Amino acid sequence: MVLSPIIIEDLVKTALKEDLGHGFDITSNLLIPAGQSARGVLKARQDGRLAGLILALSTFSLTDIDFDMSVMAEDGADLQAGDVIAEIEGPARSLLTAERVALNFMSHMSGVATLTARYVEKVKDTGVEICDTRKTLPGLRLLQKYAVEIGGGANHRFGLDDAILIKDNHIAAVGSIDEALNQAHMLAGHTKKIEIEVDTLAQLEDVLANGKADIVMLDNFGLEDLKKAVQLCKGQITTEASGSVNLETVRAIAETGVDYISVGALTHSAPTLDIALDIDV
Amino acid sequence: MVLSPIIIEDLVKTALKEDLGHGFDITSNLLIPAGQSARGVLKARQDGRLAGLILALSTFSLTDIDFDMSVMAEDGADLQAGDVIAEIEGPARSLLTAERVALNFMSHMSGVATLTARYVEKVKDTGVEICDTRKTLPGLRLLQKYAVEIGGGANHRFGLDDAILIKDNHIAAVGSIDEALNQAHMLAGHTKKIEIEVDTLAQLEDVLANGKADIVMLDNFGLEDLKKAVQLCKGQITTEASGSVNLETVRAIAETGVDYISVGALTHSAPTLDIALDIDV
Amino acid sequence: MVLSPIIIEDLVKTALKEDLGHGFDITSNLLIPAGQSARGVLKARQDGRLAGLILALSTFSLTDIDFDMSVMAEDGADLQAGDVIAEIEGPARSLLTAERVALNFMSHMSGVATLTARYVEKVKDTGVEICDTRKTLPGLRLLQKYAVEIGGGANHRFGLDDAILIKDNHIAAVGSIDEALNQAHMLAGHTKKIEIEVDTLAQLEDVLANGKADIVMLDNFGLEDLKKAVQLCKGQITTEASGSVNLETVRAIAETGVDYISVGALTHSAPTLDIALDIDV
Amino acid sequence: MVLSPIIIEDLVKTALKEDLGHGFDITSNLLIPAGQSARGVLKARQDGRLAGLILALSTFSLTDIDFDMSVMAEDGADLQAGDVIAEIEGPARSLLTAERVALNFMSHMSGVATLTARYVEKVKDTGVEICDTRKTLPGLRLLQKYAVEIGGGANHRFGLDDAILIKDNHIAAVGSIDEALNQAHMLAGHTKKIEIEVDTLAQLEDVLANGKADIVMLDNFGLEDLKKAVQLCKGQITTEASGSVNLETVRAIAETGVDYISVGALTHSAPTLDIALDIDV
Amino acid sequence: MVLSPIIIEDLVKTALKEDLGHGFDITSNLLIPAGQSARGVLKARQDGRLAGLILALSTFSLTDIDFDMSVMAEDGADLQAGDVIAEIEGPARSLLTAERVALNFMSHMSGVATLTARYVEKVKDTGVEICDTRKTLPGLRLLQKYAVEIGGGANHRFGLDDAILIKDNHIAAVGSIDEALNQAHMLAGHTKKIEIEVDTLAQLEDVLANGKADIVMLDNFGLEDLKKAVQLCKGQITTEASGSVNLETVRAIAETGVDYISVGALTHSAPTLDIALDIDV
Amino acid sequence: MVLSPIIIEDLVKTALKEDLGHGFDITSNLLIPAGQSARGVLKARQDGRLAGLILALSTFSLTDIDFDMSVMAEDGADLQAGDVIAEIEGPARSLLTAERVALNFMSHMSGVATLTARYVEKVKDTGVEICDTRKTLPGLRLLQKYAVEIGGGANHRFGLDDAILIKDNHIAAVGSIDEALNQAHMLAGHTKKIEIEVDTLAQLEDVLANGKADIVMLDNFGLEDLKKAVQLCKGQITTEASGSVNLETVRAIAETGVDYISVGALTHSAPTLDIALDIDV
Repeated sequence: MVLSPIIIEDLVKTALKEDLGHGFDITSNLLIPAGQSARGVLKARQDGRLAGLILALSTFSLTDIDFDMSVMAEDGADLQAGDVIAEIEGPARSLLTAERVALNFMSHMSGVATLTARYVEKVKDTGVEICDTRKTLPGLRLLQKYAVEIGGGANHRFGLDDAILIKDNHIAAVGSIDEALNQAHMLAGHTKKIEIEVDTLAQLEDVLANGKADIVMLDNFGLEDLKKAVQLCKGQITTEASGSVNLETVRAIAETGVDYISVGALTHSAPTLDIALDIDV
Repeated sequence: MVLSPIIIEDLVKTALKEDLGHGFDITSNLLIPAGQSARGVLKARQDGRLAGLILALSTFSLTDIDFDMSVMAEDGADLQAGDVIAEIEGPARSLLTAERVALNFMSHMSGVATLTARYVEKVKDTGVEICDTRKTLPGLRLLQKYAVEIGGGANHRFGLDDAILIKDNHIAAVGSIDEALNQAHMLAGHTKKIEIEVDTLAQLEDVLANGKADIVMLDNFGLEDLKKAVQLCKGQITTEASGSVNLETVRAIAETGVDYISVGALTHSAPTLDIALDIDV
Repeated sequence: MVLSPIIIEDLVKTALKEDLGHGFDITSNLLIPAGQSARGVLKARQDGRLAGLILALSTFSLTDIDFDMSVMAEDGADLQAGDVIAEIEGPARSLLTAERVALNFMSHMSGVATLTARYVEKVKDTGVEICDTRKTLPGLRLLQKYAVEIGGGANHRFGLDDAILIKDNHIAAVGSIDEALNQAHMLAGHTKKIEIEVDTLAQLEDVLANGKADIVMLDNFGLEDLKKAVQLCKGQITTEASGSVNLETVRAIAETGVDYISVGALTHSAPTLDIALDIDV
Repeated sequence: MVLSPIIIEDLVKTALKEDLGHGFDITSNLLIPAGQSARGVLKARQDGRLAGLILALSTFSLTDIDFDMSVMAEDGADLQAGDVIAEIEGPARSLLTAERVALNFMSHMSGVATLTARYVEKVKDTGVEICDTRKTLPGLRLLQKYAVEIGGGANHRFGLDDAILIKDNHIAAVGSIDEALNQAHMLAGHTKKIEIEVDTLAQLEDVLANGKADIVMLDNFGLEDLKKAVQLCKGQITTEASGSVNLETVRAIAETGVDYISVGALTHSAPTLDIALDIDV
Repeated sequence: MVLSPIIIEDLVKTALKEDLGHGFDITSNLLIPAGQSARGVLKARQDGRLAGLILALSTFSLTDIDFDMSVMAEDGADLQAGDVIAEIEGPARSLLTAERVALNFMSHMSGVATLTARYVEKVKDTGVEICDTRKTLPGLRLLQKYAVEIGGGANHRFGLDDAILIKDNHIAAVGSIDEALNQAHMLAGHTKKIEIEVDTLAQLEDVLANGKADIVMLDNFGLEDLKKAVQLCKGQITTEASGSVNLETVRAIAETGVDYISVGALTHSAPTLDIALDIDV
Repeated sequence: MVLSPIIIEDLVKTALKEDLGHGFDITSNLLIPAGQSARGVLKARQDGRLAGLILALSTFSLTDIDFDMSVMAEDGADLQAGDVIAEIEGPARSLLTAERVALNFMSHMSGVATLTARYVEKVKDTGVEICDTRKTLPGLRLLQKYAVEIGGGANHRFGLDDAILIKDNHIAAVGSIDEALNQAHMLAGHTKKIEIEVDTLAQLEDVLANGKADIVMLDNFGLEDLKKAVQLCKGQITTEASGSVNLETVRAIAETGVDYISVGALTHSAPTLDIALDIDV
């Protein structure tokens, strides 16, 4: 996905204002003379997948229009500790003011991409896609889902509005799986996909009998049941496994033959990727 | 710290709008009848420290004014898996719409509090305070720092404006530690503290000789040097250790006698705490 | 669809501020005493389908918390000229201040619903669904699409993000229909539908041969070609006719057997429905 | 009127974000390579009066800074079907992303200008001015009133704050026309005009006897009464006819000699003007 | 004028957020227990005209919904030092948090009202109206103009949009006073007044000869010329004196018989009115 | 302090929109031809200290990108009446549109700087620093505190969050000065200073006995008590005098030897500095 400049600008300004508090960087204002230049080098301190460089660069350019930047790596690059990502040359004062916000964006997004890439690597050659969930950090969903894509993952729905996902409570409210799917299909319009979550093979059979779902989420299925489910669904409906997925379990789940495995941890528990700005004043 | 209601409202509305996308929860709108009620129970699925309940409750009340809520636990509670946190009763449709955003806030904030509490536990009886950094997730700094406090940690500065923190590049720009401290002291006003980062004992001696810093950050010091630094500083200046701090190393660092240990991981790498909403429609 | 209260509030406040300009209603401020009450009756002056009542009611309640309101009709009602929609009782000054904004929302939305209902009526018993487009008025898309639904229509995608719609230029950029569909299918994730626009039966055959599209938009097809297209697509892919649709042509298009007919005019050219507020001071 | 760049920017960004939803154009992102260029030609598909070109151009430039644009027509031009309005050359991906929003602004505004021009044409050589009302679409008032001006119409007040308009309910609250005008005149300050609405010749006489109104709105007067009213007002007060005005009735109303005729339909019921973007990838 | 609640809310939230900085009142949070109540009394410490009470009360109620307030004085009251304005009872913590913002609004607005009242008192019985200008403090114009009205003054235009004010540079651009007035009159629409600024009696004669201006601003006229100007204008056009107006000169200017005297100092140089909040914890 | 460009942009856009009201400058739009150029000279009409030039320049550049500007003076300059500050050359229409907002910012900020400079001059050679308070005008705190700095003053805390200031009510809530300071010290974190307000020498002794405060505010002390207080505090704690400070009393207060004198009037009662824009069309 391509991040729109007007949306990047909003996100970066919000983060800069958060860091500026009442509106200034007191240390740099007091100590760095106005005319002084500096050169900063964005460098990986850990191996990992780069994501969010444009956010970092925009942080510098929105802090000061007088920066020159050269880019040595692009989102999606597999960095090794020590690799140079970009160089930023310009006013020393603004470089120091923007440093932390720039790194906070890029380190978190690269952390998400790196964790995703590890999951993707685990399921290599199984044909399975790793995808994200709506378990994201408030205000950061677009950036996190972008990072998942950079990590080689696929995106599940972006919000409550862009696809139908029928869960147990929806089914309970309507009365039955059949009724829920009929109603969703009749009312949803033709441009929305319908996914339904099931907990048992029996429920899955109801879904297949109805025939109106596009995707079935097999929630917390054991491996044996997953395999049976995959057999039942083959050629009829897309399968997605969810629940109790981690780096230890994901390979076995993938080998059941499901189409997608959704992993909340990609966005709710990704550790940062250590990236630094080395500055020569 | 007490979170202001006008700030909570802004954060929650932003997160709800992010999840609503074009503006609606298509699944619940199609399948849950308007008049139907439901009861949801917020429940811990993992042991941990609760933080951010008010964000979750506000998510429900801003989605629908017709909820009744009973609170069984408060921020700061040490939850055990299975503990009930709160009950929310009201319109089934709105309960489902608000669920994920409410959980996203509370799970992340409880994750930060839980990780902080683990660090605090590690340094028990040393008299050391664990504190946070500015390595926070963009847009979430206030909530994360609040969660650190709930976890038993202390807050470092909130932004670039509320305390002076002189780093190597500031020193380089001015010319010397002595000059940097003199200049900061002269210009800073009387309500801001001055902290300075040093990498060596020699630099520390310059700081102590100058006498105008309130806090010294001992960055990436070995344990032996840390102990020497603590001796030099005793009674004169507050000490803060930073760099290479993790759950394995933090105890030894604390035993050097430093006053504060700052830990970026509290806010940049805290895994979520698993909290769920069990719903009876 | 259910309009979220936080989104309604934003839309109404924006409209009220637009009308208040520098911030006040000079006429009512000067002439209506603070304590004076009034009773207003929202009344249809034309036959039509009601939509947007909640916007009107919110306009009154956001202008003044002291209104009592009784509702006699709900969105979706088929009004006859003279029908009472709601009564609003409270401060005369605020009633006059809110009047025009309340009516502007409800008259426009009812206009869209009414026009949609006319199209829907035209295709009665054909099984065809009338749907909207992205040809909406800037800032009003959600309200307009809501009104289309109230008018008995279906909603096409809400924006550039929630479904894939491949047009001629996309095909040209990629090289062929087959290539475009393959690429979209591989990259899109499993929760997005894929629609593709074709101008000829030959193109349609490419689409069907590929098999990865969910919907085909038959753009500006003559009636004969439409019928052929419908035959080809039956049971394989959803069909949507678009282009040159108006109240005169829509029935014949519907009788070709297409599944959906999309009509830009629903949202870009709907005349207002005349609704008035009769006030007794 | 000249639209301020900071206001245009706000309106365009709001519209772009509405279309981007969760933040991206999925189709163009997936299918159009980053480096590909395209050339788009904005072209009228119907005869009409052009208005809002700057909104369209700003939509492209806020989507991507890399567009070159050549303008062949300006706001106010009388377009014939097929006329080229402007050419936009630049990144194919961004051109497709911005297309619909750009057209939505310009087609609606040109629709308003075109309808206004038709009214103005109808009253040619009568010396009467056609003017708008506050019956505008929420959030679009400035753009619609701008388009009315481009169509050759005049602008009535822009909101509740910039002129006094005394209606029947205001009169009822105060007690009499005389009292209402006295009070308004005493309190209004010297920079606001006072307009008063009357329904009968008897009321008009009260207005003229008082002498403090600048404008009288003759609401729903028959043609004979309008003529009498115009005679009574000549040289004393500006006259404005309103109510039951349409393209059939407007000429006869104009021939009564009133100064202004206000027409709600200009802004609440203007059909779009068909304008397209022809693209060569 | 009546301040709209949605506009008050925006202004108060902006001011509260400005004071909360990163989002909290550290002192009250640390020292005041959550359950503690307090009673605050808003009291004048200086004689003056009260304005802006609703802003102060809204500051408390937006900080905490649990306040009870009793109002003893209303906007427009002439306070004596020691007079009680209102009592606020509720959570001690929130009372202290809101105190300064509440006072900042009310003290400044009362300062503007008090200064205006002094000017108005100076011109007593001359029939002259004192009015404000656009020389206001950025972001505070509505509140300042409201305070001028409370002080007994009249409001000049609120912005660049709500009346025409032709100054020397506009005249120079067009070529002559006659031409400028003709053009403004032809293009302005019927709901805007036209004011023109003149520096000499000769220019005034041009204005009177043209006959299309509603108001003439006599800028920096000597007293003798002012008297002559007033004679020339009598019965034809409203007169406004401006320039070099202060509390010493205003009476003599008023005695020349002008209709309005505009005073920039009302809004750009009004000293605060000392109002305090006496708190019993 | 250095004002961040993203914050300046927000403040200037807010002020411009306030002045544009419904969105345009009617006079300049009607009378100044689009192509006409003009040259404006920003000139002091009074002696004083310049502050806020960047706000004025940004007002022009955000109104129109086509201005050329030459700067002859910088913030901090001591202007004499008649001094040229800057020249702005560009579109006449935009120059007139931006004029008043540009002047409103710069005149007010220069007024604050000029008043501050007068206080600073009064205490010359005493070694005392004049500082501001939180008695600022809502929405303008950052600009006012910036202007105080330009005037040679120091900044007190910027809000409720960036330093602890314990007042009588906080002490009352906790029970004693000793308890309040202990609690604040224990909970505040190491980066916040602690200031405490005292009214008597007895209270001061409690503060000194406790030893945990960084600053003591001596509120409304008589000169003799101030001298005694200064003796007691010497070398132990920073002293700040507040209350009843004006240009007549400030010197005597300074001569008591206090470190800081805080003056609310700097920001709540500074008269404007007269600056004009002389324009040649």
